[in-house]
Amino acid sequence: MTKTNPGNFFEDFKIGQVLAHATPRTVTEGDVALYTALFPVRFALQSSDEFARGVGYARAPIDDMLAFHIVFGKTVPDISLNAVANLGYADCRFLKPVFPGDTLSASSEVIGLKENSNGKTGVVYVRSTGRNQAGEAVLDYVRWVMVRKRDEASPAPAPQVPELPSAVGPSAIALPEGTDFSRIDLAATGSPFKWGDYEAGEKIDHVDGVTIEEAEHMMATRLYQNTAKVHFNQFTEGKGRFGRRLIYGGHVISLARALSFNGLGNAFLVAAINGGRHVAPCFGGDTVFAWSQVLEKAPCPGRNDLGLLRIRTIAAKDRLCHDFPGMENEGDGEGIILDLDYWVLMPR
Amino acid sequence: MTKTNPGNFFEDFKIGQVLAHATPRTVTEGDVALYTALFPVRFALQSSDEFARGVGYARAPIDDMLAFHIVFGKTVPDISLNAVANLGYADCRFLKPVFPGDTLSASSEVIGLKENSNGKTGVVYVRSTGRNQAGEAVLDYVRWVMVRKRDEASPAPAPQVPELPSAVGPSAIALPEGTDFSRIDLAATGSPFKWGDYEAGEKIDHVDGVTIEEAEHMMATRLYQNTAKVHFNQFTEGKGRFGRRLIYGGHVISLARALSFNGLGNAFLVAAINGGRHVAPCFGGDTVFAWSQVLEKAPCPGRNDLGLLRIRTIAAKDRLCHDFPGMENEGDGEGIILDLDYWVLMPR
Amino acid sequence: MTKTNPGNFFEDFKIGQVLAHATPRTVTEGDVALYTALFPVRFALQSSDEFARGVGYARAPIDDMLAFHIVFGKTVPDISLNAVANLGYADCRFLKPVFPGDTLSASSEVIGLKENSNGKTGVVYVRSTGRNQAGEAVLDYVRWVMVRKRDEASPAPAPQVPELPSAVGPSAIALPEGTDFSRIDLAATGSPFKWGDYEAGEKIDHVDGVTIEEAEHMMATRLYQNTAKVHFNQFTEGKGRFGRRLIYGGHVISLARALSFNGLGNAFLVAAINGGRHVAPCFGGDTVFAWSQVLEKAPCPGRNDLGLLRIRTIAAKDRLCHDFPGMENEGDGEGIILDLDYWVLMPR
Repeated sequence: MTKTNPGNFFEDFKIGQVLAHATPRTVTEGDVALYTALFPVRFALQSSDEFARGVGYARAPIDDMLAFHIVFGKTVPDISLNAVANLGYADCRFLKPVFPGDTLSASSEVIGLKENSNGKTGVVYVRSTGRNQAGEAVLDYVRWVMVRKRDEASPAPAPQVPELPSAVGPSAIALPEGTDFSRIDLAATGSPFKWGDYEAGEKIDHVDGVTIEEAEHMMATRLYQNTAKVHFNQFTEGKGRFGRRLIYGGHVISLARALSFNGLGNAFLVAAINGGRHVAPCFGGDTVFAWSQVLEKAPCPGRNDLGLLRIRTIAAKDRLCHDFPGMENEGDGEGIILDLDYWVLMPR
Repeated sequence: MTKTNPGNFFEDFKIGQVLAHATPRTVTEGDVALYTALFPVRFALQSSDEFARGVGYARAPIDDMLAFHIVFGKTVPDISLNAVANLGYADCRFLKPVFPGDTLSASSEVIGLKENSNGKTGVVYVRSTGRNQAGEAVLDYVRWVMVRKRDEASPAPAPQVPELPSAVGPSAIALPEGTDFSRIDLAATGSPFKWGDYEAGEKIDHVDGVTIEEAEHMMATRLYQNTAKVHFNQFTEGKGRFGRRLIYGGHVISLARALSFNGLGNAFLVAAINGGRHVAPCFGGDTVFAWSQVLEKAPCPGRNDLGLLRIRTIAAKDRLCHDFPGMENEGDGEGIILDLDYWVLMPR
Repeated sequence: MTKTNPGNFFEDFKIGQVLAHATPRTVTEGDVALYTALFPVRFALQSSDEFARGVGYARAPIDDMLAFHIVFGKTVPDISLNAVANLGYADCRFLKPVFPGDTLSASSEVIGLKENSNGKTGVVYVRSTGRNQAGEAVLDYVRWVMVRKRDEASPAPAPQVPELPSAVGPSAIALPEGTDFSRIDLAATGSPFKWGDYEAGEKIDHVDGVTIEEAEHMMATRLYQNTAKVHFNQFTEGKGRFGRRLIYGGHVISLARALSFNGLGNAFLVAAINGGRHVAPCFGGDTVFAWSQVLEKAPCPGRNDLGLLRIRTIAAKDRLCHDFPGMENEGDGEGIILDLDYWVLMPR
């Protein structure tokens, strides 16, 4: 019997099955420093313990996307080692802040299965949950991936596709308990714009561009203990589809989120991710730009100090975004690599 | 109104104006680890909590240049986003040690303005101050930059150029309170040479060379949350003056300072920077060497355990420094990228 | 007198001489984060404070190889600055766990000397010991290097070659005090295989490959404050034997050890290194693969919860290892870069 992890194949997944993922991970200030070195993050809440205490946290929480990537990384060996494609995310909610010192672990429940008509692959839907050392859920999300069958002859399971919300409803969003954002120092945050200053439909070019080096995306992805093979192995990937290592899609999400500081400087917290598509692959040497549109505004139930903005952020490579490149019309998408729909929390 | 930061133009600066810079930053052991990974630092005081306690600190202070870069980084969005050139530094003093756990913030006062005769740009002089969470100044310095005017037709302000010392006077230097360097272990520091072993005029080739990778200078510069565009964006810089990303000048300062360990191993603390010039740009792939000359020696007022050395360190790229390349005569400067004049504290 | 470190030459070493190495180093969570970002480490014991507490540690110990590299790095300026070749390691034992917050220092005793017949070089044998702030030895090992003579005319010392064990005996291995591995959670560790599941002779292909970037190996090697010149200076190395920077051999050891997780996921601790050979140099851009063979099994004296596996791990560059490439026959070694013989501790 092989001692190495063969990963799960489509036949191995059953509806209702819960997979406990390996390698609990204590998050540290070292992880935060690396995240800061790898992405141009400048949100005051995650940068300063003093600022965080001023709004009611015990100390600065870690970046929401850093928590997401660590949880996601744990799911890879069990969910997507034999994946052909990562098809989508939905219903991702950030439920509790994560602090240095917390230990994260992850599990996934299989909530949908549908074999493809070619009989070679199937789509697996899982809800993955990250928990801290107290067992509290810190974030959860649904993801669906196309996974190879071990044996094409194995019978197809009864297809079951979960109903997923097109967006997380504002009432389903977890608000940060014990905090008060009503008196933040806008000089410290670097942006004078609060929730009331944004309008639905408004577009913002985040202006700056960042070139990704191979060392950077590999270090980031290893930091999350995500060992998906395509990101690390030039010898094998050099002979593959693209001739090169593929950058983890989450790297582009973190980069776009960090770039969005320039225009959304007070969007301290990602409250939920409604959905996201990695429209095209990204490679070492690519320069990433981003722009955002405010899709929707919503008040926060029971809170006068915070409001919700639903944001669509589009990232492009090797093209400026001053013309807000979209994908509504054919041919629009030249250079676009990410289309992300999410809610942020912003002081009112 | 644009939500992104347009930066300040020459007309936006007024004498006496104080700019509070954004993004307070809690410094951590993670930052120190990254700094150690990025620069070949080996000074015992910053490397070992035990050594630091032995001379009277609560724990190891962070590298002075790391503190400087973090403070400097904060000033960029307000001072130099529309800068054409970073012209100089002067009168930089390190006033208090910075420890992991401290939160740094920065402000700048405009102390000089002089429009250039072309009417398109002007020189802005600011004194920038970094403070810890207790509001104590940890370092301050003057810098002057050439900044674009928003509108060439705007009237020139009355020119005012501050008087700046050509060097910080020994009496203006802040000595580390509560410390005693009289009984340090020279085996632990790696250098047998104390203050008394150096002579004014003495030249030291630091021998070693370090090649800079693109990933390294970008990670370092992001660690300081310095978002000056020219360091990160190959897509745009590839079409510009140099065809490539420009390395943050402070990266070369840190590299030269770290290289200077080999010859100045007991120069634990940078007490002041008298002035510095980035003589030529530095790019990914360049190999940096450095040499130093002792310009001057001075006792420390009230301290028998420490002495001051005024050092001129010159860094060069892709050339050895055994012949002490200078810039006194025309044509001397081939390959020279940095000329830095500073005071260090060394045990007697 | 030169202020820079000339290093020791063959004549400078005397039998029985003890060299106290410079730069004590406080290990931090930042170092652990960088190590995680640089190597694909996933062993649960080093990843999670909670997991570590569950088996009896106060918190997660650092990776054994990280401790080794930090100690090794300190010896370089005194032992191998004038080395022509690093010839071997033996009798390396990991004696105490190292935790973030510990301060490591190192010393070496000269235990053997043998001048080469050409009169230009000699072999120096040292036993190096790393100690924590309490003075406790945390690891020790013997290494021998070929070092240049300063003066070919100096007389040869009486040759003395230490007797070294071909392998550390199980009874000489230090077991982790106060721990109990009998009830670990195999879902958390990611591997269902315990000591009893392995057999002597068994071979395991670790499957995954990792490409090394120049920025990565330089950052790692600087993190250990190892300043051996050949790793960092492309200007000089570009004119040398290989035309490029040489990767620190320890980088390949760490990479191979991390890759071995896939197949040896419960091999939490390296107990001893019996010997190792860097069969061929490794360079930036190389992709490293590894496979292992179980050489021997041994019980742990006095412990029913742990067993010892003696492992031989072979790393290769730019070649897969599914055929277990060895070096027993001539021509076998194509692409092989490391042959490492060591003991690991694994729960029974």
